Amino acid sequence: MQVSILTIGDEILIGQVIDTNSAWMGQQLNRIGMQVGRVISVGDTLDAIHRGLEMALEGAGAVLITGGLGPTKDDITKKALADFFGVELVFHEPTFQRIGLILEKFNRPVTEAHRLQAFLPANAQVLPNKMGTAPGMWMEWGTQTLISMPGVPFEMKYLMEYEVLPKLQAKYPGTPIGHRTLLTVGEGESTIAARLSTWEDELPDGLKLAYLPSLGQVRLRLTGIGPNAEALNALLDQKVRELASFVTDCLYGTESDQLETAIGRMLKARNLHLATAESCTGGYISHLITSISGSSAYFTGGVIAYSNQIKTEQLGVQEETLNQFGAVSEQTVREMVSGILARFPAHIALAISGIAGPDGGTPQKPVGTIWIAVGDKHRIQAEQLHAGKDRIKNIQFSSVMALNKLRKFILEYYPLPGSELEVG
Amino acid sequence: MQVSILTIGDEILIGQVIDTNSAWMGQQLNRIGMQVGRVISVGDTLDAIHRGLEMALEGAGAVLITGGLGPTKDDITKKALADFFGVELVFHEPTFQRIGLILEKFNRPVTEAHRLQAFLPANAQVLPNKMGTAPGMWMEWGTQTLISMPGVPFEMKYLMEYEVLPKLQAKYPGTPIGHRTLLTVGEGESTIAARLSTWEDELPDGLKLAYLPSLGQVRLRLTGIGPNAEALNALLDQKVRELASFVTDCLYGTESDQLETAIGRMLKARNLHLATAESCTGGYISHLITSISGSSAYFTGGVIAYSNQIKTEQLGVQEETLNQFGAVSEQTVREMVSGILARFPAHIALAISGIAGPDGGTPQKPVGTIWIAVGDKHRIQAEQLHAGKDRIKNIQFSSVMALNKLRKFILEYYPLPGSELEVG
Repeated sequence: MQVSILTIGDEILIGQVIDTNSAWMGQQLNRIGMQVGRVISVGDTLDAIHRGLEMALEGAGAVLITGGLGPTKDDITKKALADFFGVELVFHEPTFQRIGLILEKFNRPVTEAHRLQAFLPANAQVLPNKMGTAPGMWMEWGTQTLISMPGVPFEMKYLMEYEVLPKLQAKYPGTPIGHRTLLTVGEGESTIAARLSTWEDELPDGLKLAYLPSLGQVRLRLTGIGPNAEALNALLDQKVRELASFVTDCLYGTESDQLETAIGRMLKARNLHLATAESCTGGYISHLITSISGSSAYFTGGVIAYSNQIKTEQLGVQEETLNQFGAVSEQTVREMVSGILARFPAHIALAISGIAGPDGGTPQKPVGTIWIAVGDKHRIQAEQLHAGKDRIKNIQFSSVMALNKLRKFILEYYPLPGSELEVG
Repeated sequence: MQVSILTIGDEILIGQVIDTNSAWMGQQLNRIGMQVGRVISVGDTLDAIHRGLEMALEGAGAVLITGGLGPTKDDITKKALADFFGVELVFHEPTFQRIGLILEKFNRPVTEAHRLQAFLPANAQVLPNKMGTAPGMWMEWGTQTLISMPGVPFEMKYLMEYEVLPKLQAKYPGTPIGHRTLLTVGEGESTIAARLSTWEDELPDGLKLAYLPSLGQVRLRLTGIGPNAEALNALLDQKVRELASFVTDCLYGTESDQLETAIGRMLKARNLHLATAESCTGGYISHLITSISGSSAYFTGGVIAYSNQIKTEQLGVQEETLNQFGAVSEQTVREMVSGILARFPAHIALAISGIAGPDGGTPQKPVGTIWIAVGDKHRIQAEQLHAGKDRIKNIQFSSVMALNKLRKFILEYYPLPGSELEVG
């Protein structure tokens, strides 16, 4: 069944609040085989809400409404709903009792505004909200259902889980939907698309592939819909395994995995310790690694060598190397790897040096010239990147590429028996 | 003028991606006196986009469209727009040339998919996108304007700032609106609100103060609207100077300034060099500092001491100190400051050690216990923070607090004649 979401509140339109509710609701509805067809956000006026309701109802079996149920003057959702249905707002004694109990618990007085919160459209069936004073409401409109909930995320989530989703499932037994996501790094969206083109064209009806790119990475999401959940899941598992076979070289994870989590897992499984020597990324690679809980098990630390003096004194890079080849060179990043391995208790090290920009470029080494190196005591591999002109993007992109180089280095020189990753 | 936003992409509807673009766009439009009346999100089908366009156009002078412009098969926004306008998709040679140059820079091949990206609706005027291959498009439809941009946030933001907002302002001049923003660090929203209460109540009509809190920081935005731009600006300048007088202790910048930029300015003005010794923040403080262009003028580097061995071997922290007081202690961060100052060419150093969580806490030192220290060769100041249970938030919050401690240290021991900051 198709569902619309209607979000009410000026704070969304002026950008003071980001609407995270709709994404969460979309996920939950998907899980019970319902699809969100349209999300609409409107402001706190009767006209805007009225027109929003009409647009949301178009083509939808149910409309989930959030926001505008608070005790203050700008909260007019109930008035708008009553007008829309052509019914009165009537006092609902049990709701008023419930509000009184909640306020008592927090030692707050019952005000006139709270009394007004107990006036509901006459056709509304109350969905009790244990998390706050604003009630949830279930309203039928011909074959369609309108459900109104507060916009406060934890109140909305409580009502969805304990009231709305079970009732929706009972009223509209749905068509199963499933998703499988593969995470790739190091290849562009169009390169991957070219590899998959024939396979993608031959996907059976009801299956769809989406490409979701970010800096240096592409997420591939396979979505399926079908009458039978078991058959659909089996088909998705088969197809996602096929999909994985096209991208084995750049595949690092599935679903909500992260590159830095995947690398952490790989280091931990091999009992390897990592150290870093960063110049142009200024600590960002180490930050990515240490943003993962438990990273102290495989990350010992690093040196941020932002000046040449640190590169020579703390990492043992030769002054001749810096003079002859420059700080941004293959020779320098190789010596940074050996230097950090000699000083830090680590098996593997990652080094990076480049011109992040916007200044500091030369004709020979323009902004975006970046060298990365990965090594252990047996060998060092170096590679040059050509990034763009934007400082922040260069830092982020080169960090992702450096982590990918580390990933490939581990796979090449520290292979494990069996597959690194379960797909399907 | 009323503007609608239309967001295209299944990933929004299934909740895989949270729509942060619309909030950002709403903020920017407000700043030039335009209001968002409706935000609509639809999926990647021709029918859904077609109906979405109709709904978005209703009552709006302009519609801003994001998403569905990539090189892959699920990206059908251009086809939908061409169908909607009843025009053909035509090959646009300059766009193809621009795509070729971008791919060349990243050493990627030009594929058939990229050629398809250069086919645009015949009525579209191209808005050049310097951040990626998908072009922005400006299309007139009677008195209304439709603008299509990629959904990738930094590409959309680039196009908004350099192309869309200036062109919208030129086409639809609005009622003067003005904003002044002050940036504070280290005091909570309610503490600041209490100081401002009387002054805020007496603000003249047409002026409004908004509190925009983030981790450790509060932005104070004064917004004014009035018929005369000159009078409005003079009033805003006067009021923002009054506002600044209430928050001198925690005020570090104005408008789109950043704490790390302000600190960079302060260090540079005094010709001071900084070094860092980070444990629990794992490089995040150094990343913040080096995210600012030109930071190599005042930041020499640092050590990420994620293990105790690094703290003793690379920073000279005494083993007794670690044994007696632990790695998360005042004594340890003080020795980290002296250690890094002894080894790195810097006048001032910042050190941090704490339990970022979610594991590793004890009854004496629960998760969120963090010590920070700042010092030079004459003195070291240390301070304990009590943060929360969330790892990422703890890293970000303690980094902001450490930078604030550095800011106060510089102001106290390295005062400059005159005012640090121009307000109004």
